[in-house]
Amino acid sequence: MQQHKKVLEVIQSDPSLIELTVKGWVRSFRSNRFIALNDGSTIHNLQCVVDFENFDEALLKRVTVGAAIAVTGHLVESQGQGQNVEIQVSKLEILGDADTEEVKLTILSPKRHSLEKLREQAHLRVRTNTFGAIMRVRSKLSFAVHEYFHKNGFYNVHTPIITGSDAEGAGEMFRVTTMDLKNVPKNDDGSINFKEDFFGKETNLTVSGQLEAETYAMGLGQVYTFGPTFRAENSNTSRHLAEFWMIEPEVAFNDLAANMDLAEDFIKYVINYLVENCQDDLAFLEQRQQQEDKSKPEAERSPMPLMEKLQFILENNFKRVSYTEAIDILKDSKPNKKKKFKYLIEEWGADLQSEHERFLVEKHFKCPVILFDYPAKIKAFYMRLNDDKKTVRAMDILFPGIGEIVGGSQREERYDVLKQKIDELGIDEKELWWYLETRKFGTAVHSGFGLGFERLVLFVTGMTNIRDVIPFPRTPLNAEF
Amino acid sequence: MQQHKKVLEVIQSDPSLIELTVKGWVRSFRSNRFIALNDGSTIHNLQCVVDFENFDEALLKRVTVGAAIAVTGHLVESQGQGQNVEIQVSKLEILGDADTEEVKLTILSPKRHSLEKLREQAHLRVRTNTFGAIMRVRSKLSFAVHEYFHKNGFYNVHTPIITGSDAEGAGEMFRVTTMDLKNVPKNDDGSINFKEDFFGKETNLTVSGQLEAETYAMGLGQVYTFGPTFRAENSNTSRHLAEFWMIEPEVAFNDLAANMDLAEDFIKYVINYLVENCQDDLAFLEQRQQQEDKSKPEAERSPMPLMEKLQFILENNFKRVSYTEAIDILKDSKPNKKKKFKYLIEEWGADLQSEHERFLVEKHFKCPVILFDYPAKIKAFYMRLNDDKKTVRAMDILFPGIGEIVGGSQREERYDVLKQKIDELGIDEKELWWYLETRKFGTAVHSGFGLGFERLVLFVTGMTNIRDVIPFPRTPLNAEF
Repeated sequence: MQQHKKVLEVIQSDPSLIELTVKGWVRSFRSNRFIALNDGSTIHNLQCVVDFENFDEALLKRVTVGAAIAVTGHLVESQGQGQNVEIQVSKLEILGDADTEEVKLTILSPKRHSLEKLREQAHLRVRTNTFGAIMRVRSKLSFAVHEYFHKNGFYNVHTPIITGSDAEGAGEMFRVTTMDLKNVPKNDDGSINFKEDFFGKETNLTVSGQLEAETYAMGLGQVYTFGPTFRAENSNTSRHLAEFWMIEPEVAFNDLAANMDLAEDFIKYVINYLVENCQDDLAFLEQRQQQEDKSKPEAERSPMPLMEKLQFILENNFKRVSYTEAIDILKDSKPNKKKKFKYLIEEWGADLQSEHERFLVEKHFKCPVILFDYPAKIKAFYMRLNDDKKTVRAMDILFPGIGEIVGGSQREERYDVLKQKIDELGIDEKELWWYLETRKFGTAVHSGFGLGFERLVLFVTGMTNIRDVIPFPRTPLNAEF
Repeated sequence: MQQHKKVLEVIQSDPSLIELTVKGWVRSFRSNRFIALNDGSTIHNLQCVVDFENFDEALLKRVTVGAAIAVTGHLVESQGQGQNVEIQVSKLEILGDADTEEVKLTILSPKRHSLEKLREQAHLRVRTNTFGAIMRVRSKLSFAVHEYFHKNGFYNVHTPIITGSDAEGAGEMFRVTTMDLKNVPKNDDGSINFKEDFFGKETNLTVSGQLEAETYAMGLGQVYTFGPTFRAENSNTSRHLAEFWMIEPEVAFNDLAANMDLAEDFIKYVINYLVENCQDDLAFLEQRQQQEDKSKPEAERSPMPLMEKLQFILENNFKRVSYTEAIDILKDSKPNKKKKFKYLIEEWGADLQSEHERFLVEKHFKCPVILFDYPAKIKAFYMRLNDDKKTVRAMDILFPGIGEIVGGSQREERYDVLKQKIDELGIDEKELWWYLETRKFGTAVHSGFGLGFERLVLFVTGMTNIRDVIPFPRTPLNAEF
């Protein structure tokens, strides 16, 4: 279909006398002779050699950083370093100019820009090496997710984004409405008359597709969601987004052990996929990280180089440790005794912080860790209660550098136990009638987990701010573009 | 990982003396002897033969429609019709009961339920043959979409769901807010003080990821989105959803002809994928449609049987016809002259309705049709103006039965022309500064299209109401589950 060739194909081709055309954007133009051309298909540029005597000077003046051009010529062996072939340009066309003075005001200008500056021009940043690499890796990772589940007989379910239920229990929600905010319809008692709203009731943006996915698992057996989820939390940190993508598999008849097996197998598959299919971008990102680490205090540096970190996941069995064991280890740990932890671990029941999770992974076990059987009090209502009545069949997977990457559980499949829990928490049963019904008609053991996609992209790209791994981040006071 | 086998694997296996375990839900239990077991992995049930003398009567009483059970036994050649093998049950376990009286009140009860009734129990309907088939086909289609783009070197882009721009121009939007609706913060002049809102500005749910995808196409070359989009239109029809999934590819350097090539190639790929990978579910859905057509007036019946309709797409070249030609054909057509069209075609500039689109496809050309070069007045601001100054490089793909399935265009890449159009329409330029900037720095010809995923699922499943091809439909006054 394409009349022109992609840079990715061309740089892998052999020299040939057949002419070909390549289109892309100018990254640099050295010595009035060497154009570095990039079209986004790869991190690499195609070197295009122009003999300036054959071209109009005015034309060559328009070959500036950021300009879109088409070059035609044949491929020859390259004399220069860093590429096997280069194109000997016989025809050069300017498709779209880029005014040098205006480019200077943007992140397209050829100098080092801070990540903060790049965020302000999110519509242009994908044209830089760093963001080109991140977004290609993100895309490949996304495909690997679908491929894994597809190969393993899972069905993809598009759970609703707008939800009439506020019982998902995972955090603050965004309201969705078509009511006139200047004149919100009210009932006689002063409360809001949601009957006048689009859906005739209060609606919010989903925080998780899990509950709906569970209903599908009880019909299709093995399902997964991969869609946007939302948190209206006023957290302006490098780890939080108001809008992010989440992966949530849910499997009928899986108990917690099978759930752990699934999560470990899944993560290893998608990371291995990247190691095999994104070498160039990962190599660039590893270099970038090492460069950046040089200017950081040691405590903030990456615990290991990027590729080594990915191999660390692939080569280790994830160590399975109960919450109770973990608390004992942490209580007795040096940083706890020497009060180096910000949050000291004093007793069973404490919620673990990232510092504790990282200690377990990086210092104590030196491998990825799956913690399980957490105190019921610090976990969600739908998790299956153990016979001890104080722990639930929850599991969290902990990774180096970031701590928790996966949270999952075996679900409470017993109608009476679930109903009692819902009542105790004061959740309106009418909100969850359909969820409860799945426990009425052929209920079964089932399990699932949630993985925040951007957390995983952070991990595999070695980036440190979550705003840099999603095209247009949404955070408090920021919904630009 | 699984200790039990899927029905899909088992029914394709040879008889064997090795015992295996299968878990699923009871679809029927005939003669106290034959359990039809389904686990969602396929439309087919596994026949499980129990010798009632070997089992406790009380246990067998609990084998009721909807109950979850585990059966263990070995596979033997089946004497009955409709299956090659059946399982000779040596062990039977009830995992979850389904009270017969309560099941009677649900759509799980073994009789024919209307699609309306099934919608009211969307948490259970995937456990019926029809919805199991639809949702498996939907999932496979979703995978085929990702596979096509992946194979062809496209990058997947997650464009934002919450948007600060209301210039996307595709329809009414839902407001997203965290403001207290009982007490909306106002400015001195009575207007709403959006500075107090979560994002510090007015935000809505996206109606299209196109504009953001364009910025990524100008960096990565070939991209696509596949995510939820929203319309706050009060349209209670069988064709409209307030929340639906959209596929939007966008390609740098593609002109309109290349855009048509891409769309045709893409659609044929994904439909062929289903024909090759969903035979059983499609065969069931074809039967279902034929059954349903019997009770419909002829005008409302499907123009052709399901599989024939899919082959019709695969085997025909899509006929490319300009809007102007199409208007001439329609003006001279019998239904126009005999005033059979609800909307008569009287002059150039008319917007085409589904009846006109279907006439062109089903009666006139007898093949899928791509209309192009539409009047600028009836199309969006970002479409490339032709030299005639009155038409734009838009294209719509028309299919039998449903009319428009794809809408796309070559985008206006000329900064000045785009800016003028935006000004003429009174769109606030500040909203689109970033979009305009892509035309400033290395602009290039580029094109893309949008395909409503549910429209395509409707087409390939032969269903007629769009609420039946998405797990939990959102429509006016309906956001249940």
